[in-house]
Amino acid sequence: MTTDIIKNISKSPVTGKEYEIPLSLNDKKGIDDFLALNSGKKVVVVQGLGFVGSVMGLVVANALTEEYAVIGIDLPTPQSYWKIRSINEGVFPVIASDPKIEQYYQSALRKKNYYATYDNYAYSKADVIVVDINLDVQKKSDANKDPEDYHVDLMPFKKAIEAIGNNCKEDVLVLVETTVPPGTSQKIVRPILEECLQKRGLSTDKLKVGHSYERVMPGPKYIDSIQNFYRVFAGTDDKSADAVEKFLRTVIKTDEYPLTRLGNTNATEMAKVLENSFRAMNIAFMVEWSRFAEEAAVDIYEVVNAIRMRPTHKNIMLPGLGVGGYCLTKDPLLASWARMNLFGSGEKLGQSEKGVHINDKMPLYAFEYLQSQYNGPLEGKKILLLGVSYLNDVGDTRYTPVEGFYDQLEIEGCDITLHDPHVKYWEEKDIWVSQNLDELLDNGYDIVVITTGHKDYRNNESLINKIVNLPALFFYDTIGVLTNEEIQKLSKKHTVKVIGRGDL
Amino acid sequence: MTTDIIKNISKSPVTGKEYEIPLSLNDKKGIDDFLALNSGKKVVVVQGLGFVGSVMGLVVANALTEEYAVIGIDLPTPQSYWKIRSINEGVFPVIASDPKIEQYYQSALRKKNYYATYDNYAYSKADVIVVDINLDVQKKSDANKDPEDYHVDLMPFKKAIEAIGNNCKEDVLVLVETTVPPGTSQKIVRPILEECLQKRGLSTDKLKVGHSYERVMPGPKYIDSIQNFYRVFAGTDDKSADAVEKFLRTVIKTDEYPLTRLGNTNATEMAKVLENSFRAMNIAFMVEWSRFAEEAAVDIYEVVNAIRMRPTHKNIMLPGLGVGGYCLTKDPLLASWARMNLFGSGEKLGQSEKGVHINDKMPLYAFEYLQSQYNGPLEGKKILLLGVSYLNDVGDTRYTPVEGFYDQLEIEGCDITLHDPHVKYWEEKDIWVSQNLDELLDNGYDIVVITTGHKDYRNNESLINKIVNLPALFFYDTIGVLTNEEIQKLSKKHTVKVIGRGDL
Repeated sequence: MTTDIIKNISKSPVTGKEYEIPLSLNDKKGIDDFLALNSGKKVVVVQGLGFVGSVMGLVVANALTEEYAVIGIDLPTPQSYWKIRSINEGVFPVIASDPKIEQYYQSALRKKNYYATYDNYAYSKADVIVVDINLDVQKKSDANKDPEDYHVDLMPFKKAIEAIGNNCKEDVLVLVETTVPPGTSQKIVRPILEECLQKRGLSTDKLKVGHSYERVMPGPKYIDSIQNFYRVFAGTDDKSADAVEKFLRTVIKTDEYPLTRLGNTNATEMAKVLENSFRAMNIAFMVEWSRFAEEAAVDIYEVVNAIRMRPTHKNIMLPGLGVGGYCLTKDPLLASWARMNLFGSGEKLGQSEKGVHINDKMPLYAFEYLQSQYNGPLEGKKILLLGVSYLNDVGDTRYTPVEGFYDQLEIEGCDITLHDPHVKYWEEKDIWVSQNLDELLDNGYDIVVITTGHKDYRNNESLINKIVNLPALFFYDTIGVLTNEEIQKLSKKHTVKVIGRGDL
Repeated sequence: MTTDIIKNISKSPVTGKEYEIPLSLNDKKGIDDFLALNSGKKVVVVQGLGFVGSVMGLVVANALTEEYAVIGIDLPTPQSYWKIRSINEGVFPVIASDPKIEQYYQSALRKKNYYATYDNYAYSKADVIVVDINLDVQKKSDANKDPEDYHVDLMPFKKAIEAIGNNCKEDVLVLVETTVPPGTSQKIVRPILEECLQKRGLSTDKLKVGHSYERVMPGPKYIDSIQNFYRVFAGTDDKSADAVEKFLRTVIKTDEYPLTRLGNTNATEMAKVLENSFRAMNIAFMVEWSRFAEEAAVDIYEVVNAIRMRPTHKNIMLPGLGVGGYCLTKDPLLASWARMNLFGSGEKLGQSEKGVHINDKMPLYAFEYLQSQYNGPLEGKKILLLGVSYLNDVGDTRYTPVEGFYDQLEIEGCDITLHDPHVKYWEEKDIWVSQNLDELLDNGYDIVVITTGHKDYRNNESLINKIVNLPALFFYDTIGVLTNEEIQKLSKKHTVKVIGRGDL
């Protein structure tokens, strides 16, 4: 990222504004002033101001049955410092299509009950600390390399928990929302916090540690995915579970979306990674069936739609270019790692790991299919990619499968142009992305590829007509958004290929 | 089976009546007399009088918008001959909890429009022939042996199609309902029929061949699973597809359950095996998570119930003793076989095959878990198995996983007693099964195992109380039907173990 280049500068991709990271890291006055404005309110500190934490902070600042003073805390790094400043300066650091985001933020500004800081002093004031930091898996990014070669580094997570333990009150409730390897709250978070409290000469009897995973979906229902959705929770003991329940009831619409309390935190932690493994697995399962469909002149989309008419089969997935996002690409690995490393099992979760590896190879397959179907070498070909986000109708490029596909085209020496209605700047690649499709299409292309299933590319008659009028090209749908009529229309002039369809 | 012992006798398990199989296999007069009674009606011949064909015959005999003369045809073998006689003598050969079965059968008896025969002469009179015979996969039944060692023998299926081709009219519609390897209608059925017609000097132009798979569920909604359910169909050409559609519209409530027409028969054939592979795979997927749950002191049922609150995750499955029935145990293998053998792919459907193999090993795991948890050797122990059927609340023992579990106990030298409210006679093992649980429980047991999730074993307070009052025993739930309260109650006196729960 550009912000990495100058280490003491943090630049907001939202406003373009640059912030110098202070050398003296003391925000005691800022925190005290904020709390003075909010005296009498319970204090909730949200650790981590990413996609989940920053918005969780908003939701807590607009809790349903309680008025909280909310402090968001993150590290004073080039990646995060601007978020802290931005929240305090009146610009919310997440761009989202959900109008509730801005509405909740404006409400918090009026109430003056949402503050952001980098100073661990905040933990000492907290009644509740919500842990929303990332816990990543390092993979060998090249799908050709040994797919079992991945690494879970708990160090940054442990340090964050230590920062809490070294500062928190002895009766604090620490609620972990991070997706963690099952066993983490019980075997890692609680022991670290207890050790810190003991070192500080404090009691560990009143400490409460619980886990409740979020199901945040960035997009048009961002806020609702936190506030109006089912929650599963547990505590490391009954007292902790009770405290978590009490807190969640003030924040979430539990009358419409009842809470589910599980027996222990291993169970809630497992539920989250199991959920995501289920999805990842079901996509992987469809990958080999798509290959079979291509071989057997079958339209896999037609088949899946027919199968989905059965209520018991509604959740059958579809393949596509690949699987992206922060969860499905790593959660099965977190689980498998935990099984072996936290519970000492001799066996990994082999099928779930395999699912991730199959999905990781999908962009490579999509590229090789293009190579095999395109008449001639790809070198120097002008290629337009429609979509950079990993998810339909959302501007989210985290672990997008478009990256693997793009990289292969780049290796081949293609001349690549990018379009995405929801992505202006592709952070991971440091590339600007166009939003003006009409203008783009005025240039000629050898190959046009649908790489994300955005609405803009579905049933868009004027888009299809415009493409029909271009000189003959290779049109490649890696998602399966084209209808039969569109395929017929395009085929009159162009070569059309769709992943998972053998009968074009 | 007992009926196998004397080769020319076929015994009805429904009535106990024995029939001598005639040496002279000519039923021309019977067929002609039946058709004389039904003159003017279109003739539908249903090939195969098993779980699907016999009931499909009933449904066609009670079609919604057309009055058909229906002839069911099967082989004059000890296994099948009694079905033919039974249908003609007023006793329907399938025992089912669906009252509509008897109602439809009585209606057909009144209308005199359902006849059964073994004589291929019937095919010569047919306007429509519905193929409902089995197409089996031979597996090495021992799960310890090489799981990839399975065999698809198309010979019996091909012979059945030849019997049609050697007798049928040139403009007949042959509708394949059998679950077949994708490609079968196009690459096997149609070529065989055309060859037969050509040999008989007839035209192949008017022949219609289509595929539409049934989704029959034996049980309380047996008839509805044919007549009131979604259907997917296709033809080997447009004319065939039109003919299939026209026929299905007369039989199925298509206004409520619209038909889905796919592009070719490869697609419908693939849809069926894909549906079942999806289910089989999702069960297999949960197997390793259950093991993880046992290791991590997690209750997998609690976790899955929490996950199922999400509409996108409603179909997540649960593990148990294993997977049984005619479809999930073989359909993924049929598909994988087809991919390699009918479409020449170098790759099998590896994940789907693996799913079957994992599921096949579940009964063995359930046994090994018992062995590891039970204090002492199993030899000579008195064991009561609750449930023989593979499916809840249905008496269906085809490929029931209870068999693998039972076999292991037998090898150990256990003294096994069987109970199942829906199974009187376990055909595959030639064993009688008790229905009187109260009486059975008066005997003492060392071990009681829930092996099928019948309603009778769920939330049955008197059953639990009765078991609590027995001398201390080992209570083993392989399905996960016990509630927490029941576990607590039982645990006061007995040792309780549940597959997929580590925290008892």
